[in-house]
Amino acid sequence: MEDVEVIILQLFIIFLMAKVASEIFAQLKQPPMIGELFVGIFLGYYFWNTFEASMDILEVLSELGVIFLLFIIGMETRFSDLRRVGNMALSVGILGVVFPFIFGFLLMIAYDMLPGISLEDVYPVAMFVGTAMVATSIGITARVLRDMNVMDTNKARIIMGAAVIDDVLGMIVLTVVSGMASAHALSLWDLTIVILEAVLFILIIMYYGEKLIRKLAGERVVLGVRVRDERKDRLAQLEHPHGPFIFALILCLGLSAVAVILFRLAAIIGAFLAGMMFAEVRERYKLVEKMEPMNEFLVPFFFVFIGMQVHLEILGHPDLLALTIVVTVLAVLGKLLGTWTATPKLRKRTRLIIGVGMMPRGEVGIIVASVGLSLSIITQELYSVIIFMSIVTTLLAPPLLKYLFAKKDMED
Amino acid sequence: MEDVEVIILQLFIIFLMAKVASEIFAQLKQPPMIGELFVGIFLGYYFWNTFEASMDILEVLSELGVIFLLFIIGMETRFSDLRRVGNMALSVGILGVVFPFIFGFLLMIAYDMLPGISLEDVYPVAMFVGTAMVATSIGITARVLRDMNVMDTNKARIIMGAAVIDDVLGMIVLTVVSGMASAHALSLWDLTIVILEAVLFILIIMYYGEKLIRKLAGERVVLGVRVRDERKDRLAQLEHPHGPFIFALILCLGLSAVAVILFRLAAIIGAFLAGMMFAEVRERYKLVEKMEPMNEFLVPFFFVFIGMQVHLEILGHPDLLALTIVVTVLAVLGKLLGTWTATPKLRKRTRLIIGVGMMPRGEVGIIVASVGLSLSIITQELYSVIIFMSIVTTLLAPPLLKYLFAKKDMED
Repeated sequence: MEDVEVIILQLFIIFLMAKVASEIFAQLKQPPMIGELFVGIFLGYYFWNTFEASMDILEVLSELGVIFLLFIIGMETRFSDLRRVGNMALSVGILGVVFPFIFGFLLMIAYDMLPGISLEDVYPVAMFVGTAMVATSIGITARVLRDMNVMDTNKARIIMGAAVIDDVLGMIVLTVVSGMASAHALSLWDLTIVILEAVLFILIIMYYGEKLIRKLAGERVVLGVRVRDERKDRLAQLEHPHGPFIFALILCLGLSAVAVILFRLAAIIGAFLAGMMFAEVRERYKLVEKMEPMNEFLVPFFFVFIGMQVHLEILGHPDLLALTIVVTVLAVLGKLLGTWTATPKLRKRTRLIIGVGMMPRGEVGIIVASVGLSLSIITQELYSVIIFMSIVTTLLAPPLLKYLFAKKDMED
Repeated sequence: MEDVEVIILQLFIIFLMAKVASEIFAQLKQPPMIGELFVGIFLGYYFWNTFEASMDILEVLSELGVIFLLFIIGMETRFSDLRRVGNMALSVGILGVVFPFIFGFLLMIAYDMLPGISLEDVYPVAMFVGTAMVATSIGITARVLRDMNVMDTNKARIIMGAAVIDDVLGMIVLTVVSGMASAHALSLWDLTIVILEAVLFILIIMYYGEKLIRKLAGERVVLGVRVRDERKDRLAQLEHPHGPFIFALILCLGLSAVAVILFRLAAIIGAFLAGMMFAEVRERYKLVEKMEPMNEFLVPFFFVFIGMQVHLEILGHPDLLALTIVVTVLAVLGKLLGTWTATPKLRKRTRLIIGVGMMPRGEVGIIVASVGLSLSIITQELYSVIIFMSIVTTLLAPPLLKYLFAKKDMED
């Protein structure tokens, strides 16, 4: 067999195992992505050498997968939803970012002071761990809420709104932190410039980008109302049958490249912003429907690749196991405390439900960890700790939510 | 920048250029894939060294692209359509395969006898060139016919039916030829076994594969009529929202791997067969709609990669230029003669229209050439000759068809 044939065979095996695992997890009512991660951890632990030949390809496919994944997440984050989110969701979102970040940050500072441990350059490390603890992966909670038919309750709306805020805040924190990390040899003044540039990049794209796309799609605002002139829809006028979709893909890859090259940010930040630009027109051009099948193919390679880099050995090290447990507990407490502080007037159980709903770190925590690893800021061990924290918080949320909702039913 | 970031940037540039070129070609009412090929020829000629770092990735993406492309072509080849095709389409299809194959084969034998030229092992080479001349890429003709609103005429039906026959015959010929080539050191007896195995593989999958999928989809035949029991649709019962699509992808990659590993065939033959298995259920599960956007992303990498390997220098060699012209003329004549022989009772112009409609080799000729190159059977020069033949026949057909139809309109 030729090299390329070996690689295609290995990609087939990885894809098959990932999809079987995710189907099993789905049937057990567990998050499918956790199944794909486990396949990665398994293959990485037992068959690392077998797949060595495919690692370069796997890395590129995984990078494409995560870029397109963030693109879809961005498309589901409408600018108008951000404005419409209530005050309570806003404070749940913000405090749910602040507490976990501070917890993660302080933990790492404290960890560094333990005898025998020294994280060289502790501040970037601490900031990255804090950032990884910030994220909320709403997909898993949303699925549980939908399965239980409680999507139209007030708590569900607060959770969903807060998660949108979290996505955007998470990306901004990641931007600042990775900007600082990649410029950590610079003076304070240069650092400020780097961060300002990056934040400006985000704000400008968020504000003008969406307007630009809406204009290309033939929309204008007349007396405060959005009207659309089909004849001026330049995207639909492309000769290509999937014109608008292809245009969106080009922008997604293009902004990912710009984020990396011009602003020293992670590619996924560009992809997320590109997604937000298309959030208002996504339905008209069926963008999510067209992206989803491709992501079904590419994203498993991301989770498997992520899993392959996890060092299962940390579970055997008492120190690292302890750290994993502490990080996980703090990740849970951070979201619960954030929610608790933000919702003083709600009933106790409602506050608990919202806090638990914000708990799963899922893919977002994992993505932050992988950015940290690829920038060589966090070590392989810390990376593994964060992946385990993401897995545990993600697996815990669904049964806890079901339990809390069931308890309520009995009382009401 | 890290390696993976450089590669993502290069993939973005290639994708952007390919899509801009294909949009320009589409607006000029030319086949978009030719635009993508030209981008590849351009990049290969001027920027080969720049893209060297991405070549391995590009090769894998291009292989995935062509696998998925053949999967869609297979899905559009229904077994039931094959049976329904009229006798005339059947003979047009068969003779349109026989004549070009013989022409290509004899040409190479004759070419080998020219003073100063020696193709070592001329028979495999001659068979591959013959095979590359066999294919009909119906997409381009179909588009022209649709644009002219003549899809419901008798000639259009004959062309479409014959093209389906051509696809299947082309795959069988490619199977036999690549089987013989990969086993050319074997005895005549072993060779027969290899070919028989390969042909049996095709026939068994074509016959039982489709039945198996229909059974999984909950269909059975009662008194000669197909009925479907939704409760027995095992594919729709998968927990995954895109379950049937993912199952199809797994089968496509799996059969591609089986074709390569067990039968020493090209991966695309497995993909084509997998596609045919799903042809009858493709609409129910929206398989084509889900594949298309992914192919919009992956297939351009195939055409660009193909183009990058073309040696533009052959146009400067009088010998090779002459060979290109002869191959192209014979490719056109082969299809015209095949059609002419198969349709004695039709009017002259109708026979011409059908012959011209069968002319474009498009992606299929190119795919055969790339298989031959990857098996090291044909040289880089012959490969370039075949690509040019494919481009020219593909570019010639649309204007000729329009001209012939317009002439008819004046007379009728």
